[in-house]
Amino acid sequence: MAAERDAEGQAAARPLLTDFYQATMALGYWRAGRAQDPAEFELFFRRCPFGGAFALAAGLRDCLRFLRTFRLLDSDVRFLASMLPPDTEPAFLAHLRALDCSAVTVRALPEGSLAFPGVPLLQVSGPLLLVQLLETPLLCLVSYASLVATNAARLRLIAGPNKRLLELGLRRAQGPDGGLTASTYCYLGGFDSSSNVLAGQLRGVPVAGTLAHSFITSFSGSEVPPDPMLAPASGKGPRVDLVASVKLWLERVCAHLGLGLQDPHRGERAAFVAYALAFPQAFQGLLDTYSVWRSGLPNFLAVALALGEMGYRAVGVRLDSGDLLQQAQEIRRAFQTTAAQFQAPWLEAVPIAVSNNIDEEELARLAQEGSEVNIIGIGTSVVTCPQQPSLGCVYKLVSVGGQPRMKLTEDPEKQTLPGSKAAFRLLGSDGSLLLDLLQLAEESPPQAGQELRVWPRGAQEPCTVRPAQVEPLLRLWLQQGKLCEPLPSLAESRAFAQQSLSRLSPAHRRLQSPAMYQVALSEKLRALVDSLSAGGLP
Amino acid sequence: MAAERDAEGQAAARPLLTDFYQATMALGYWRAGRAQDPAEFELFFRRCPFGGAFALAAGLRDCLRFLRTFRLLDSDVRFLASMLPPDTEPAFLAHLRALDCSAVTVRALPEGSLAFPGVPLLQVSGPLLLVQLLETPLLCLVSYASLVATNAARLRLIAGPNKRLLELGLRRAQGPDGGLTASTYCYLGGFDSSSNVLAGQLRGVPVAGTLAHSFITSFSGSEVPPDPMLAPASGKGPRVDLVASVKLWLERVCAHLGLGLQDPHRGERAAFVAYALAFPQAFQGLLDTYSVWRSGLPNFLAVALALGEMGYRAVGVRLDSGDLLQQAQEIRRAFQTTAAQFQAPWLEAVPIAVSNNIDEEELARLAQEGSEVNIIGIGTSVVTCPQQPSLGCVYKLVSVGGQPRMKLTEDPEKQTLPGSKAAFRLLGSDGSLLLDLLQLAEESPPQAGQELRVWPRGAQEPCTVRPAQVEPLLRLWLQQGKLCEPLPSLAESRAFAQQSLSRLSPAHRRLQSPAMYQVALSEKLRALVDSLSAGGLP
Repeated sequence: MAAERDAEGQAAARPLLTDFYQATMALGYWRAGRAQDPAEFELFFRRCPFGGAFALAAGLRDCLRFLRTFRLLDSDVRFLASMLPPDTEPAFLAHLRALDCSAVTVRALPEGSLAFPGVPLLQVSGPLLLVQLLETPLLCLVSYASLVATNAARLRLIAGPNKRLLELGLRRAQGPDGGLTASTYCYLGGFDSSSNVLAGQLRGVPVAGTLAHSFITSFSGSEVPPDPMLAPASGKGPRVDLVASVKLWLERVCAHLGLGLQDPHRGERAAFVAYALAFPQAFQGLLDTYSVWRSGLPNFLAVALALGEMGYRAVGVRLDSGDLLQQAQEIRRAFQTTAAQFQAPWLEAVPIAVSNNIDEEELARLAQEGSEVNIIGIGTSVVTCPQQPSLGCVYKLVSVGGQPRMKLTEDPEKQTLPGSKAAFRLLGSDGSLLLDLLQLAEESPPQAGQELRVWPRGAQEPCTVRPAQVEPLLRLWLQQGKLCEPLPSLAESRAFAQQSLSRLSPAHRRLQSPAMYQVALSEKLRALVDSLSAGGLP
Repeated sequence: MAAERDAEGQAAARPLLTDFYQATMALGYWRAGRAQDPAEFELFFRRCPFGGAFALAAGLRDCLRFLRTFRLLDSDVRFLASMLPPDTEPAFLAHLRALDCSAVTVRALPEGSLAFPGVPLLQVSGPLLLVQLLETPLLCLVSYASLVATNAARLRLIAGPNKRLLELGLRRAQGPDGGLTASTYCYLGGFDSSSNVLAGQLRGVPVAGTLAHSFITSFSGSEVPPDPMLAPASGKGPRVDLVASVKLWLERVCAHLGLGLQDPHRGERAAFVAYALAFPQAFQGLLDTYSVWRSGLPNFLAVALALGEMGYRAVGVRLDSGDLLQQAQEIRRAFQTTAAQFQAPWLEAVPIAVSNNIDEEELARLAQEGSEVNIIGIGTSVVTCPQQPSLGCVYKLVSVGGQPRMKLTEDPEKQTLPGSKAAFRLLGSDGSLLLDLLQLAEESPPQAGQELRVWPRGAQEPCTVRPAQVEPLLRLWLQQGKLCEPLPSLAESRAFAQQSLSRLSPAHRRLQSPAMYQVALSEKLRALVDSLSAGGLP
């Protein structure tokens, strides 16, 4: 398989984006004659993030892109050789140079699937040396993508379906690709759009944005617009001097609001006019550069009403400081009284956007019933996931040469589940999710309508369950290096994520102290765990 | 200035890695005839991270790389045009196509400098439209780099100078570039090395790593090494069958430790032997795959003593679960008794490495006096900065056309300091840091030995200070697009960071409840703030 270039090549992971021990182990496997032993690894997490009971699987498209283009360059191999022992065999280096993923098979949860602890997000099988080398890049590509998608999904659950959620986190991300990953997977998790232009260009994420405080403060009010004349929205009728019209409207607005004509800041007004002249169809006011009540609001209303007279409708206002909810309520009332005063009913419904360090708690406040906030911009707290900034995915060897492998360790939580496995979601007759079942790959799948005995993880006793439906969880995406089916688009995965979440019971979907969703082992898998644990020290 | 390719091009930020509002504002400036107005922005943070009293400035090298290669591609401009109004002027798009940073000047704190709230890390001046466009990528490049360098510096302060700190966070970072940025700036902040190979290849970070649990579990013990024969370290004398020698040593070790010969796991021993055959000069044992005491330790000792007999010295052991400190103490004692038993004094000093979710608190425990831990691997908690995963840098307009600009806002903390400024560090006669002074660029610098009156930020009263030395803080790096002096190497910046930290008083360097370091305004700057605040609503 030739190294494949794709449009997103620049942002892709590279083979050397890996922990050095993968390279030393590669030499170890090679010298032990085990480079080609057939091996299987599983990528999973041990606990759901943020104290919740679910996660969304994400990052698969980046993994497949990485795998399909995986090739070590000559310069990569030379760099590795410079760190390996001086007697490293040229044949080993030649082996590295020839590596690609044409012998790798990947099963995985589709993007946007519900994922639970211990259920593999990815199963990667292929030659031992190679699939070991893939560990770090795959973890890097899945772990944060799934974390931030889950975080975005939580915020969407809090916001409800009607608030528009805008991701603004690029400046707070871990460098360029952190930002691109965040914007992509926040959208997958349920956000409506991102401020990140590159995410629009490379990933098709809807992009939004209007203006910052610097645009406002860059105007002093002494600037003269090159052309203050604006044609009406209909295109019919004479052009109007927007500056003059805004001046007239400002007088009326100030009288209505009980403000002096000198209160609203000239520079802010000049900035609003400049923005309105550039974007008459998409005028938005950022209200809090100087003072919302004495300046931002009256300036916005004057420009919006002047535009309104010409048939243009302002698209919104934005607040970025202070008590966002309270101000939104008061601004809506001001819109309503002003709309009534000047017979401009469209003004009542102008969307109110807010931003400024909004976290889950503040979002719940902003999304409460009766809130007049329409659009919520979230940056830091969605991108950096401050409640828990890492998902802790691991990538563990489960079989070599067809034989199951298990790590016991000093810490029972870090034990692994041995063997090549299949995973199923068992559903009740009403379509509700009962549990996820892990079993050995060689076992026959559970049958709908048939009772079976399973061992919930962590339980000392088995239980019985009779699923009305059974869904296999892991799909074959890459077989011997070949893509088996086209990946869904990002927007399709986003819809799938929302659909997946809607099937989760309220008790499991709850963000605080949820009921834990059960993951269970088949009797055979449980027996294998017991036998390897007991026989762990032969 | 032609777009410049460099060896790190793949990882660089791109011009569209920006918030969309930068593009809408660009059109707004352009239509207002203000694209070329000379403007200056400052990049700074408002509070030190992690509850500390200092931060390290970092990310400058990435910013300069970004600026020197800044060019919008045709496809970039077409993508922007697709999102801008349909009547967007071709001349505006041509303006975007022609943009580069040949008119941009950057002053900045050198990499690894101590940085304090409100003191600019970067001052960026140039044409208004362009320097506005640069906001998001510069914030993205500086904010996380400075955060993670500061986090690494704190961990170094806790660890003290003698423990080796290894960064292992790639798999927990925000995608590929998050990992590269983290590894680079953890090194700058005081770590010794990283597991990340790409950081070694692209940035020259020292790289380290040995083996993972999967290497151990991949061996069952039934494998036959292709060649078990090993020549002595000296190269002189006959080759020895390492498998046979380890078997003999295992009997002696088990007898010494009071273990049965069947206790140590065969597969683990086979893995150790395979690794030792591949890396006889760099044998390290990962002890906790099955059981440290019954398996990992005796297997390690058997292999290490077999190698030792041939003149090879094991380079370490690693623990990745359980109580790391207690195990390290016990392992050191086992090394000592075993060294005495078998006349192998070198064994006493074999380094003990630990990893597993180590945070500041656990690091303090591991670094306490008497600890036998030598090498500490930290991943998640250095890379994701869970105490505070974002620095909150901002990029604010301070002047346009030579006139100072200021944002007032509804929240006093979000007010900006107007005007083009200079910054100085004032020092006492003993070289201690007194305070950082911000003044207007046109003021003459403070003089050593002369008393001056300054206004500490947040204080209602001025104070006087007589510095024994005065250091200018901001250096000119880029003048009209040209690099003014070569950047120091990453290793030089790392040394500079340690030197900078050593000059900070213990009260300011303290990680918990430190004394806050003062940043003060000159009388003229203070007067300008007062006048613009009062006159903010003309």
